[in-house]
Amino acid sequence: MKIRYLHTMIRVKDLDRSIAFWKLLGLEETRRTESEKGRFTLVFMAPPGQPECPIELTWNWDGDEGLPADSRHFGHLAYDVENIYDMCAHLMRNGVTINRPPRDGRMAFVRSPDNQSVELLQWGGGSLPPAEPWLSMPNTGHW
Amino acid sequence: MKIRYLHTMIRVKDLDRSIAFWKLLGLEETRRTESEKGRFTLVFMAPPGQPECPIELTWNWDGDEGLPADSRHFGHLAYDVENIYDMCAHLMRNGVTINRPPRDGRMAFVRSPDNQSVELLQWGGGSLPPAEPWLSMPNTGHW
Repeated sequence: MKIRYLHTMIRVKDLDRSIAFWKLLGLEETRRTESEKGRFTLVFMAPPGQPECPIELTWNWDGDEGLPADSRHFGHLAYDVENIYDMCAHLMRNGVTINRPPRDGRMAFVRSPDNQSVELLQWGGGSLPPAEPWLSMPNTGHW
Repeated sequence: MKIRYLHTMIRVKDLDRSIAFWKLLGLEETRRTESEKGRFTLVFMAPPGQPECPIELTWNWDGDEGLPADSRHFGHLAYDVENIYDMCAHLMRNGVTINRPPRDGRMAFVRSPDNQSVELLQWGGGSLPPAEPWLSMPNTGHW
């Protein structure tokens, strides 16, 4: 039987704040559905050129029990980025904590506003030469 | 800055059992990494023809705290399937509970062994004519 990947859905508390976060990473909104009857909004966001790999932000207008929680059974969303140092600097300038700084020039972790863990990897499996301030930056919390 | 989707990672308790579940859905193993040093195994599984949209099963050999949890901040993984009734029947025959049966011929939800919510949708946004046993099958638990 054929099977095809559609999206990874994540629940959000504050839709605007969440969209802003994913835009910081470079994702674009590709599709949106609003349901007056169901009192929810779905926003699909994907990397440019990858409309087939979206996340689906689900916002329940009347709130959503259990957000943000910190269970580890989800894991994370992972993205390749062109320059991991520039991305982390960009995120920090916009108030995002780099929970696991890219000390190795290769890998970083941040959290979305709803506590989803997001892994950032240097493009194509490469790594940048070690550099400050990342090299001596400690971890913050967990991810 | 360029950004590219890589995978959705989920943590698993029993690697063989989890691989068996995702194979039931039709996913194929595309890549595997074992780390003696880190004491973990990563197994990438994707729908046939979609190697760019894998899930990454992360198995920590010494266990993983907090599995299976039921927090709602993750959401679910979604897949189109060729025939939603046949898929649900196939899953049931293999002991999987259909938490939300496809009463509408269009949508069903199941849980992975690690409690990740999985949405199944009839291929291409279509729906099949309503049919038993689905039509009168109640929900089980939540998803």
